[in-house]
Amino acid sequence: MIERYSRPEMRAIWSEENKLRLWLQIELLTTEALVRAGIVPAADYRRIRAGCQACLKDLPGLLRRQRELEQTLQHDVIAFTTAVAERINHRASRWLHYGLTSSDVVDTAFALQLVQSADLLLADLDALLPVIARRAREHKSTPCIGRSHGIHAEPITFGFKLAGMYDEFRRARRRLESARYSVAVGKLSGAVGTSAHLHPRIETYVCRKLGLRPVPVATQVVPRDLHAEFQTVLALIGASIERWAVEFRHLQRTEVLETEEPFGKGQKGSSAMPHKRNPITWERLTGLARILRANAMAALENVALWHERDISHSSVERVIFPDSCTLLDYMLHLLRRLMDGLQVYPENMRRNLGLSLGMYHSQTVLLALIRKGLTREEAYALVQRNAMKTWEVRHAGRDDADFLQTLKADPEVARHFEPGELERLCSLEFHFRHLPYRFKALKL
Amino acid sequence: MIERYSRPEMRAIWSEENKLRLWLQIELLTTEALVRAGIVPAADYRRIRAGCQACLKDLPGLLRRQRELEQTLQHDVIAFTTAVAERINHRASRWLHYGLTSSDVVDTAFALQLVQSADLLLADLDALLPVIARRAREHKSTPCIGRSHGIHAEPITFGFKLAGMYDEFRRARRRLESARYSVAVGKLSGAVGTSAHLHPRIETYVCRKLGLRPVPVATQVVPRDLHAEFQTVLALIGASIERWAVEFRHLQRTEVLETEEPFGKGQKGSSAMPHKRNPITWERLTGLARILRANAMAALENVALWHERDISHSSVERVIFPDSCTLLDYMLHLLRRLMDGLQVYPENMRRNLGLSLGMYHSQTVLLALIRKGLTREEAYALVQRNAMKTWEVRHAGRDDADFLQTLKADPEVARHFEPGELERLCSLEFHFRHLPYRFKALKL
Amino acid sequence: MIERYSRPEMRAIWSEENKLRLWLQIELLTTEALVRAGIVPAADYRRIRAGCQACLKDLPGLLRRQRELEQTLQHDVIAFTTAVAERINHRASRWLHYGLTSSDVVDTAFALQLVQSADLLLADLDALLPVIARRAREHKSTPCIGRSHGIHAEPITFGFKLAGMYDEFRRARRRLESARYSVAVGKLSGAVGTSAHLHPRIETYVCRKLGLRPVPVATQVVPRDLHAEFQTVLALIGASIERWAVEFRHLQRTEVLETEEPFGKGQKGSSAMPHKRNPITWERLTGLARILRANAMAALENVALWHERDISHSSVERVIFPDSCTLLDYMLHLLRRLMDGLQVYPENMRRNLGLSLGMYHSQTVLLALIRKGLTREEAYALVQRNAMKTWEVRHAGRDDADFLQTLKADPEVARHFEPGELERLCSLEFHFRHLPYRFKALKL
Amino acid sequence: MIERYSRPEMRAIWSEENKLRLWLQIELLTTEALVRAGIVPAADYRRIRAGCQACLKDLPGLLRRQRELEQTLQHDVIAFTTAVAERINHRASRWLHYGLTSSDVVDTAFALQLVQSADLLLADLDALLPVIARRAREHKSTPCIGRSHGIHAEPITFGFKLAGMYDEFRRARRRLESARYSVAVGKLSGAVGTSAHLHPRIETYVCRKLGLRPVPVATQVVPRDLHAEFQTVLALIGASIERWAVEFRHLQRTEVLETEEPFGKGQKGSSAMPHKRNPITWERLTGLARILRANAMAALENVALWHERDISHSSVERVIFPDSCTLLDYMLHLLRRLMDGLQVYPENMRRNLGLSLGMYHSQTVLLALIRKGLTREEAYALVQRNAMKTWEVRHAGRDDADFLQTLKADPEVARHFEPGELERLCSLEFHFRHLPYRFKALKL
Repeated sequence: MIERYSRPEMRAIWSEENKLRLWLQIELLTTEALVRAGIVPAADYRRIRAGCQACLKDLPGLLRRQRELEQTLQHDVIAFTTAVAERINHRASRWLHYGLTSSDVVDTAFALQLVQSADLLLADLDALLPVIARRAREHKSTPCIGRSHGIHAEPITFGFKLAGMYDEFRRARRRLESARYSVAVGKLSGAVGTSAHLHPRIETYVCRKLGLRPVPVATQVVPRDLHAEFQTVLALIGASIERWAVEFRHLQRTEVLETEEPFGKGQKGSSAMPHKRNPITWERLTGLARILRANAMAALENVALWHERDISHSSVERVIFPDSCTLLDYMLHLLRRLMDGLQVYPENMRRNLGLSLGMYHSQTVLLALIRKGLTREEAYALVQRNAMKTWEVRHAGRDDADFLQTLKADPEVARHFEPGELERLCSLEFHFRHLPYRFKALKL
Repeated sequence: MIERYSRPEMRAIWSEENKLRLWLQIELLTTEALVRAGIVPAADYRRIRAGCQACLKDLPGLLRRQRELEQTLQHDVIAFTTAVAERINHRASRWLHYGLTSSDVVDTAFALQLVQSADLLLADLDALLPVIARRAREHKSTPCIGRSHGIHAEPITFGFKLAGMYDEFRRARRRLESARYSVAVGKLSGAVGTSAHLHPRIETYVCRKLGLRPVPVATQVVPRDLHAEFQTVLALIGASIERWAVEFRHLQRTEVLETEEPFGKGQKGSSAMPHKRNPITWERLTGLARILRANAMAALENVALWHERDISHSSVERVIFPDSCTLLDYMLHLLRRLMDGLQVYPENMRRNLGLSLGMYHSQTVLLALIRKGLTREEAYALVQRNAMKTWEVRHAGRDDADFLQTLKADPEVARHFEPGELERLCSLEFHFRHLPYRFKALKL
Repeated sequence: MIERYSRPEMRAIWSEENKLRLWLQIELLTTEALVRAGIVPAADYRRIRAGCQACLKDLPGLLRRQRELEQTLQHDVIAFTTAVAERINHRASRWLHYGLTSSDVVDTAFALQLVQSADLLLADLDALLPVIARRAREHKSTPCIGRSHGIHAEPITFGFKLAGMYDEFRRARRRLESARYSVAVGKLSGAVGTSAHLHPRIETYVCRKLGLRPVPVATQVVPRDLHAEFQTVLALIGASIERWAVEFRHLQRTEVLETEEPFGKGQKGSSAMPHKRNPITWERLTGLARILRANAMAALENVALWHERDISHSSVERVIFPDSCTLLDYMLHLLRRLMDGLQVYPENMRRNLGLSLGMYHSQTVLLALIRKGLTREEAYALVQRNAMKTWEVRHAGRDDADFLQTLKADPEVARHFEPGELERLCSLEFHFRHLPYRFKALKL
Repeated sequence: MIERYSRPEMRAIWSEENKLRLWLQIELLTTEALVRAGIVPAADYRRIRAGCQACLKDLPGLLRRQRELEQTLQHDVIAFTTAVAERINHRASRWLHYGLTSSDVVDTAFALQLVQSADLLLADLDALLPVIARRAREHKSTPCIGRSHGIHAEPITFGFKLAGMYDEFRRARRRLESARYSVAVGKLSGAVGTSAHLHPRIETYVCRKLGLRPVPVATQVVPRDLHAEFQTVLALIGASIERWAVEFRHLQRTEVLETEEPFGKGQKGSSAMPHKRNPITWERLTGLARILRANAMAALENVALWHERDISHSSVERVIFPDSCTLLDYMLHLLRRLMDGLQVYPENMRRNLGLSLGMYHSQTVLLALIRKGLTREEAYALVQRNAMKTWEVRHAGRDDADFLQTLKADPEVARHFEPGELERLCSLEFHFRHLPYRFKALKL
């Protein structure tokens, strides 16, 4: 976990304390199921429960003792059960971990951490979506230029741009829900998945109590394609965040300046240049998406474990899952904050729109000419020559031309239109008339 | 597309001819919708349809002409519409591509190629799953050793191993279905997604006819997180194939030899060593999974396009989508063939089981001793010392020992058991008694 | 290989014909060495040489026959030697492939293809570097704004920017030379690298004749860390190309427009918007860099082959090496063309410089004030308040202010300077005075 | 940094304290150079030096104060200089950071951390290589089977296998040296690399004192292709470690058991199965290599910064560089320990060799028959039929056959050989006769 780029709630999920808490819960629920199965005497169970509860009240102490024991034992789960058994301090402790293999506990607890993480990330998205929606509605009718290849294309509204962002994070939410479902699986089927020592009913009982499904077939571990799927979803959401971070970095460029990320009181942009207000948070989001992507690769390499498991995935997972979950939580949190406080400059959007001198109406005129009976080539030639004429003015750095005026001055164009017709066509309203349809479809 | 590792049916989907066929279909359907909208005269439509049909009958000719034109125009879609217009050879051709932007055609056709690919891959999985199921049932009761860390753990059956494979490819199928759904989206909303020139109803009409949904909000293109999602699913399925390829490579090792991939008549294993039968097809599958994984990374990097689109994704997609789809189709096909003809050697499985001299019963005895009232530590110590004694014999390369006999010779162990009790516990049947539960759950 | 993004010369290196040509060369040289070692009779050698030469004259015929034979044999090298032996058509052919294992031929030929590719790529770089140098010199004194975070920082010259590009591709060249050296290794040490059947002298003889070094220790194959190193260098060069492609895409944005990629006569920018001139070639370069990066990952996964080799790397390499080499050759070629014809707009650079109203002199003034005796905090406060005042004017979209004038109007600033002093400091010349030092260091 | 998988020395290099130490050193050296340039008065310098030395003596205190200030300032370098200035507590502090931009300090310090890391990693390799060399010499003549595709091929010695490992880590060393050289560059050229505020001589002075070269042309930062190069080298070394980790995991398989990783006193292999000795350290190394590989991808994506820099690389680098350096240091350390204590079982190697019943002599006999005048096909047929006959015995799980005996019993083979001749050929010595040549070339 990267302290600098994480928040306490997600860090807590991936803390050693939380892991031990979940391990205790799984061990205790298993013993509970064994009582119901008539294997463990109720009195022994009560002693175990008391010991576990004492441990739960002093997780830092349990952790300390476990680590001490791990030095010699070189096995974290045995160190854990030994430490708990010491606390039980009675022969009843022999039922602790009865019939279980380490991975039964480790992988089931891991699933719970993933589910907890997914729930937190879903909550992040649930906090983010209304903020995007609000900004989209707010700027539903704020005109700005749409750009392809970084070049002015046709007008859109800034709210329409954000509607696309809204839709993208709805997809992110759906993916995360689906990934949450995939990893919500536990296993108590033992060293090679055969349930040789604990009846599958025990597994079902414990998993249900934990809100998990039992894996239909496990090996010693839960199959790793499930965890890889989870990581690819985190990487996909990261890529979506990256897309919008790049967008807003572009919009904050000095020459564009259509939006700015919120700039704190007292914040310094540069040690050398006091006038700078840089999109550093958007840049940070861009960078962190790379880490999520890279971690997904490592997760995909973790799938092909040998036979009924090898442990090569374990060191990888200890790094990438806490890292990716905390990073994405942090990123979604930043994203919400940035979108909430995003400074939007409609007047600059209008100024930038103006840069194209109306050339973005070219297709409108092209299609109108086609409707008038011209072939596409004829229409294209007419429009292009006027666009190029306008372009040369623009290119010379002047702004004393206008596509509409140029068109009207071209008799071969003008003769096709009635007075006022070209003006009606070459309007922003023309471009925006179907946007309500999109907002409605998104319930924005 | 990699000719060597592809099959004709998937190659056809990604052929230039198929692409042009889909482009024609989209252009024609759009014109059809424009007739219904009262924009295009029916007579013009009929001429366009005739021209398109002529093109469809001579796709190679169309392709040739398009490529010629592309030399000068440097734009594949304009070259295409120009070539089709030449074939229509009438002013009616002005309605061709009316109100569309190139990406409307390109991205909608791309979605159709992805859907066609997904359908073929789903068919591959539907052919694969029953083969795995059959082999799993066939070896439901064939004992073999389960291994963790490459080391003998506890016994399983070979059919149980395959049940896990079956479940993994059911998950693969579910993922592919979900990815197919995600990419089944078209767009005809123009240069920046505003539907400025064509009413959204036209988009809906065309998409429905093609079996697609319209994208709720597009830019110039369909958002690339959808395509990245598709690629990550291909990579995930690749990783699952890799897992099983690695498994069967292990099982074919000289020292293990529990299975062999089918070996063709006349096939030569080595130019130098005539005795060799190598798992080369499994190895090929292992390698190809790496390419799918790498391509997923490139797809994830494609998401963050600038503003309403840049075209950096295009060159990447021209490579990775045909490559990944053809590779996965080829891989699934090979996998089915390998599983169908997999040579299984139950006698070698038994021999390998024997190598552990019964030590895989250690946990069974450990738990029995706990049930007898020993603490875990006491039981562990007793079991370990007998396991170690057996191990030393084994380690010395001898096989004249047996864990069960060793245990029985240890009075501290023996005194806890009645005659015959240890024998009943230390049996393969004990390990397999809950397997039917798993097979039933999978409906195998 | 991706036909669309490749050039004939590099395609030829990776053609099946070239591979067979190299195989023939290696087989023949080995036989030659065996004659010198007294194993093969000279007369037999002459027959083999004649057969090989006949094959060399009809490589397509050899390829056809090899493929036919491969259908049954399922082994490409055996199919090859069989086809060549048929051409020799005499008992002398028994010496063909004598003592060799397939990988001796395959891997040594692969090394030669890599060396040929590296040489072509080095030639590409040698053609590129002087073009960058020329443009750098041409614009040595063309002022433009330097940007950090996409925000105006301090002035640079466009030639200085290109000097950085020049230096980066010098580094690329050094990396490629080093990678060429690394892969220039052959092996003829047989099935497991022991040279059991051919004396190491034979290996040395053949390798030297081919311009290769023998691998100090091989397994059946040349160790794959060498090939992975080569691919990472291709990916690194791709990343450098990407950096500059992104740079020039930025500079072509409508709002910036400091450069444009050359736009061909007759080229159409958009099927819908005739006024567009898009940086599509730069975008293509951006995308292709992703593929090189992804392929490097696959190459890194190829390193961990099992024991004395498994063949999982082979399918991967058949895809990624031809693809990456042809792509990089194509990219370097495009890059040279783009740099050669890059349209540079110094007047727009000046206009953009003007946008910051001189605020880029803030650090100059800050340091001057420090030299005058102010503390950094005092100086910073003075500079910042004037920068902010200027900024507000700028931010309001006006350009009727100027940092220098604002400073001079601030008595707390002005009192520190003599008349004319601030003007001298706040000049572009001040910023550029040390640039000749950098150009000289690069011998530009 | 991942505490669990790191060692104190490397953690110290990447600690916040060390970073601040290096920042102090760079700031102080710059002031020193400014004294020599006649800009900073000597008295002021002495005060600054005293302040810096006080800070150096209380780095934790400096760090605390910096973090406090960073809360408001949102800029780590300004927070740092402010904290140091507080300690200087005199107007002399105005010369602190004079003419520098944050990245001058940050990137130059980063270079020093990379150089320190490289030196530690080189020391790790220098400790590793002699251990591998010792084990290689020790087992120079210990026969074992060479395997391709996991299938027995021809005999090698275990020392020869290790000779290959030795050579691979020599290559690793060379790569690391080269990467160390690449990143040993500093820059003090200011906000956009022009050296507008500090003469390049200052940069040269400071860099030399620090053991660095000045970057020929920088932007605000050192170009990131250099850092990406460094990371790809770490990933390459990781891939080499992975190769050998996979090798030794294979050799520890129950069925193979030719080596075992050292097993600590008191260590427990399994919570459930007391007899297990698992290659968990090798598996951990396998997993960690995946992280290095993934981090290299992220580093490659960091290259394409915008214009004269954006800061998206920074968050990535804060994670991947400390992580990768500490991981690789930890991995090399483990690798040395494992190689040092590796348990080698020559008797099992012999037993496994025996499994092939001498079939690994097939090529020897094939070539001998060719020398006797048979064609390759004739020889191949003879050898194959005897190999297949032997194989069937082997395959039936019996070991009462032998390739040599089978050959001698085949009159068509036997008639070509004199008595004793086949025995001489079919010997391990025959396979090993050229190994000394390889050991000598490696100076082993």
